[in-house]
Amino acid sequence: MQSAKTRILIETVQKLMQTGADANLRRLLGKTHAADLALVFRSLSGTETREVFNLVAGLDERAELMGELDPDIQSRIVTRMKREDVARLVAEMGADEAADLLGHLEEELSSAILAELQAEESIEVEGLMGYAPDTAGGIMVTDYLCLEEDVRVEEAVRVIRSSGHVDMAFYVYTINEFGHLVGVVSMRQLVTASPTTSLRSLMEPNVLRVRPDTDQEEVARIVGRYNYLAIPVVDESNVLIGIVTIDDVIDVIREEATEDILKLAGSGEDLEEVRSIRRRVLDRVPSLSMLFLGGAFCFAILSGYIDLLREKVLLVLVFPLVLGLAATSAVQSSSFVIRGLSTGVLGGRWLSRQVLREIRVGLLLATLYSVIALGFGFGLESSEAGVMIAIFTFCSMGVGSLVGTLLPLGLMRLRTDPIIATHPVVKALTHVLSVALGMVAVSAWVRWISGG
Amino acid sequence: MQSAKTRILIETVQKLMQTGADANLRRLLGKTHAADLALVFRSLSGTETREVFNLVAGLDERAELMGELDPDIQSRIVTRMKREDVARLVAEMGADEAADLLGHLEEELSSAILAELQAEESIEVEGLMGYAPDTAGGIMVTDYLCLEEDVRVEEAVRVIRSSGHVDMAFYVYTINEFGHLVGVVSMRQLVTASPTTSLRSLMEPNVLRVRPDTDQEEVARIVGRYNYLAIPVVDESNVLIGIVTIDDVIDVIREEATEDILKLAGSGEDLEEVRSIRRRVLDRVPSLSMLFLGGAFCFAILSGYIDLLREKVLLVLVFPLVLGLAATSAVQSSSFVIRGLSTGVLGGRWLSRQVLREIRVGLLLATLYSVIALGFGFGLESSEAGVMIAIFTFCSMGVGSLVGTLLPLGLMRLRTDPIIATHPVVKALTHVLSVALGMVAVSAWVRWISGG
Repeated sequence: MQSAKTRILIETVQKLMQTGADANLRRLLGKTHAADLALVFRSLSGTETREVFNLVAGLDERAELMGELDPDIQSRIVTRMKREDVARLVAEMGADEAADLLGHLEEELSSAILAELQAEESIEVEGLMGYAPDTAGGIMVTDYLCLEEDVRVEEAVRVIRSSGHVDMAFYVYTINEFGHLVGVVSMRQLVTASPTTSLRSLMEPNVLRVRPDTDQEEVARIVGRYNYLAIPVVDESNVLIGIVTIDDVIDVIREEATEDILKLAGSGEDLEEVRSIRRRVLDRVPSLSMLFLGGAFCFAILSGYIDLLREKVLLVLVFPLVLGLAATSAVQSSSFVIRGLSTGVLGGRWLSRQVLREIRVGLLLATLYSVIALGFGFGLESSEAGVMIAIFTFCSMGVGSLVGTLLPLGLMRLRTDPIIATHPVVKALTHVLSVALGMVAVSAWVRWISGG
Repeated sequence: MQSAKTRILIETVQKLMQTGADANLRRLLGKTHAADLALVFRSLSGTETREVFNLVAGLDERAELMGELDPDIQSRIVTRMKREDVARLVAEMGADEAADLLGHLEEELSSAILAELQAEESIEVEGLMGYAPDTAGGIMVTDYLCLEEDVRVEEAVRVIRSSGHVDMAFYVYTINEFGHLVGVVSMRQLVTASPTTSLRSLMEPNVLRVRPDTDQEEVARIVGRYNYLAIPVVDESNVLIGIVTIDDVIDVIREEATEDILKLAGSGEDLEEVRSIRRRVLDRVPSLSMLFLGGAFCFAILSGYIDLLREKVLLVLVFPLVLGLAATSAVQSSSFVIRGLSTGVLGGRWLSRQVLREIRVGLLLATLYSVIALGFGFGLESSEAGVMIAIFTFCSMGVGSLVGTLLPLGLMRLRTDPIIATHPVVKALTHVLSVALGMVAVSAWVRWISGG
């Protein structure tokens, strides 16, 4: 949700635009943080976007703002700019942000812009564009402090003083003569060390490192677990090629959480506004089809019980109630198990005990709601009707809780990501098994009481 | 899921314990990172936990490990230790971690331990225990570098050299004579500045700050948006009382994602293993009761159509299919909207356009599956049956997509957190409205064809 601060900022920008108070607007833009401006841009139309962007003074400021904007807003601005201007802007951006920007543009436009860049820059940006966006290579930055290990502190200080902006200027990575990563020195050590000390004698030689193809989720896990502010990325011969900084890791963690929430609901994986309606529809077809298929199975099963359903129409009237309880119970268990496995809270030697506990929770709830259902049926019709509904409820909720608990675990045993046991999959399977078991149990009971 | 590395570590520890190779085990523990050891502890039994903990050499190492352990494992160890020993351990831990540990223990035990601490330490720890755990005060640390603004760089370097371990030693906060926060200097600036410069002339005076009662989610948003590594916490008179570091923010973001996933499924808010079965059952009762209530409404509505249901029994057989599709469609839309609102991807001036787009996606899917349902009914029985099922499907899925989109938005308009539109709430409402609208439409159609 928008904070009050953001809302006020958006309103002010719009008012200044309407009154044509460009000088004031320019001043406001100058003193607002790029991350806040990026939120304002979400509320502007296409023309306004370009107008406001052009009012931002200074190439540096524009490059910083461009790096913060959403991909679709970036392309809206860039496609209308002269190519030389874009190239000048891109050259000013960090290589990682430039690579992201160009990666979102049409092939033709991005190669034209790359051609305008100086050779060195275009090689760097193109190199980064070669990594998959969800890997360490895709999120690493290539501006960092890096010195040979035999450099002395006084020399290091000179280099740092003359270096321009670098990300995460809190660590200096040390390399040997072959460019191999050999250690890390913190800025605090540099502050307190004597000027003639060599970096080699200060550095921490045990540096966890990742490869450019390491999955970003794995990178986030490492950074989060060991409380690192940055992690170096090395190629196959241990040559330092970039670092992943903790602020990008935060974005990864948020992104992955969004992906999990949408995946679980069976509605695709990401939220980007640019996504076409067609793509969104297609994203949801697999899980809806799963429900359709499950429904078709239920249809087939229920067809065998048409006479019973006509006779005991009460059973039909509680379908939404019973199926709703079963599916919810299943989704509760599966969310618990899936999140538990992925955060590591569930696992290890006591997994089977934890699983039994989750099943106990499910069965207790099944019992509770069966008793309520018994009362419901009894109050409405008769004790026999009550027992019938109670049996149906217990079977369905019990099945639901077993499916929700065991399906993700089974997938994990098969070394598959448990998250493919999405809510729709869990729900469809629960529907089928609930109807199957429920109808067998209810019809057995009906036969038993009419026989008795 | 456990990584291969963690699995091997756990197996090695267990093998060394079984063979009684204490010396080897001690050596392994000595060279393993506390964060990795914490994962091993999850797989140990109560007695093993204490045995292995006692094998960790050095108070420092023990304090670090204790800080990484899960709360239930902490209490398992602490409750069997002598109070003096616990006090010595607690004194060695960071005040924030000590406060978390004591906060999880029985009141009596924690006050006994506080009594053993030195006055200064116990005041600090008790102070932190007073903040709610999900606020800036609850997650801040109190060890940081902080100097008066008129201190010179050379003096600052001396202080830093003599200071022990502090968290996030990359910033030095500057205060005035009243202890008010006035600026921040980075370690990099200290490295490159001349020794006689005062901190005042180096410092960045515009420092975003939070109050101890700021919600941790808000803190995470600020740190994430501006890419800060730490954010200072000040009291009502701008006196610096702590800092929240980015590594703790990462934990907050993960925690909040877990909370969202579980809340959406209606199964409580957190995953902690210690939670009793009773608490887990109670956590799920509200959402299951919502489904029960919805089911009871559906029962009442369907009761009005008993004759129709008996006559057109095909309708009954597709209940699981149609309700499953409707509920899934609703949950897909609501997940999209809720996550979009909370990450800020949805919002601003184009919100209504984005909402219309989401509804279009829902209606397109409703049309698609109605056509499939038409074919299904036609293939199984007759074109009339097909139309009947198609009408039911379209109404239900259409209702589902409207409920899923509009309910979270409505809640936001009412300034309520949209996440209370959990899957169970959305599902229950969808069931009731689907059944209501579906039965009205189907019975109208049946009347129309039998009349025609």
